[in-house]
Amino acid sequence: MSSLKRLVDALRCLPGVGPKSAQRMVYHLLQHQRQRGLHLAACLEQAMQYIQYCQRCNNYTEADHCELCLSTTRDRNTLCVVESPSDIAAIEQSNAFNGSYFVLMGKISPLDGLGPDDIGLPRLVDLVASEGISEVILALNPSVESQATIHFIYEMLHTYPISISQLAHGIPSGGELEFLDGITIGSALRNRASLNA
Amino acid sequence: MSSLKRLVDALRCLPGVGPKSAQRMVYHLLQHQRQRGLHLAACLEQAMQYIQYCQRCNNYTEADHCELCLSTTRDRNTLCVVESPSDIAAIEQSNAFNGSYFVLMGKISPLDGLGPDDIGLPRLVDLVASEGISEVILALNPSVESQATIHFIYEMLHTYPISISQLAHGIPSGGELEFLDGITIGSALRNRASLNA
Repeated sequence: MSSLKRLVDALRCLPGVGPKSAQRMVYHLLQHQRQRGLHLAACLEQAMQYIQYCQRCNNYTEADHCELCLSTTRDRNTLCVVESPSDIAAIEQSNAFNGSYFVLMGKISPLDGLGPDDIGLPRLVDLVASEGISEVILALNPSVESQATIHFIYEMLHTYPISISQLAHGIPSGGELEFLDGITIGSALRNRASLNA
Repeated sequence: MSSLKRLVDALRCLPGVGPKSAQRMVYHLLQHQRQRGLHLAACLEQAMQYIQYCQRCNNYTEADHCELCLSTTRDRNTLCVVESPSDIAAIEQSNAFNGSYFVLMGKISPLDGLGPDDIGLPRLVDLVASEGISEVILALNPSVESQATIHFIYEMLHTYPISISQLAHGIPSGGELEFLDGITIGSALRNRASLNA
């Protein structure tokens, strides 16, 4: 196989890239951006080889601890529990949270044989106990497994003197009622915010 | 800058990849496909460094001549002239052509200072003269520059005993008249194919 065809095949490991767009990418790079293509190759190799998990929060980092865990300006009393490092990036982009994070290694899923120990819940309990955390926010993507996981975390943490919450469910910013599903609208109705309280 | 952010930036050299999808690609690779990510890096480096132009037809190849020029099963009497190597891939996928190719190094464009010599037309004339080619098919993407280029090539080649043609213009397969532009429909009407001839 020629190295051109090998590159077209290799690009298909990227999500959302099919055979046509992979081919388009290869011809674009060869024709206009060889230097940037080489730079991309170097960045890819570096990232795939040296990015590992933060020893405190499981976020991606090249060192023992991630930037967020090492930062001195973050509030260490509030801990936000998320499913994956990409969720940290999303919450950081909201600029609405200045605490620290803990990334679960998955969700509780009896069908896949994943119990509380498999997703690192004992480490979460240790963290809460040892760092004197006062608030835990559970920011999991809504799903059945998430509800089970949230339930388990609550059971493991509710004896500690901390407040435990989960993200509000409701209509997203810019959402239109006409196009939203019934579960979301139901949540938004049940959790309606009083205006005259 | 962390190597994760550097990789997100570097991925933006791919056409159609914006900041959001670059980020999604990086997290996907880190979480699920590190080995394939490393393989992609190696393929990219190999392709960017070693793919060059075929000395006969300007197609991409790692050797002096491309597979198509070296093939013994191709018809060497028919030459298809295209704008870029990606056009060769498109025509090959049609399975409708078994001749050889010649890739122009651009199109004649007086505004950009590109004349016949700059896009390699003398080499095309040499090829036609030395290889005893009997038919030249001009398969350029429709544009004003293409028309000028086709005109020039015709002027340079019409003294040779060869047939020269350009691709048919008309409605594409699966096209709907309602959504086609006027120029295309006009071409399709002027070049209508008689059914009773």
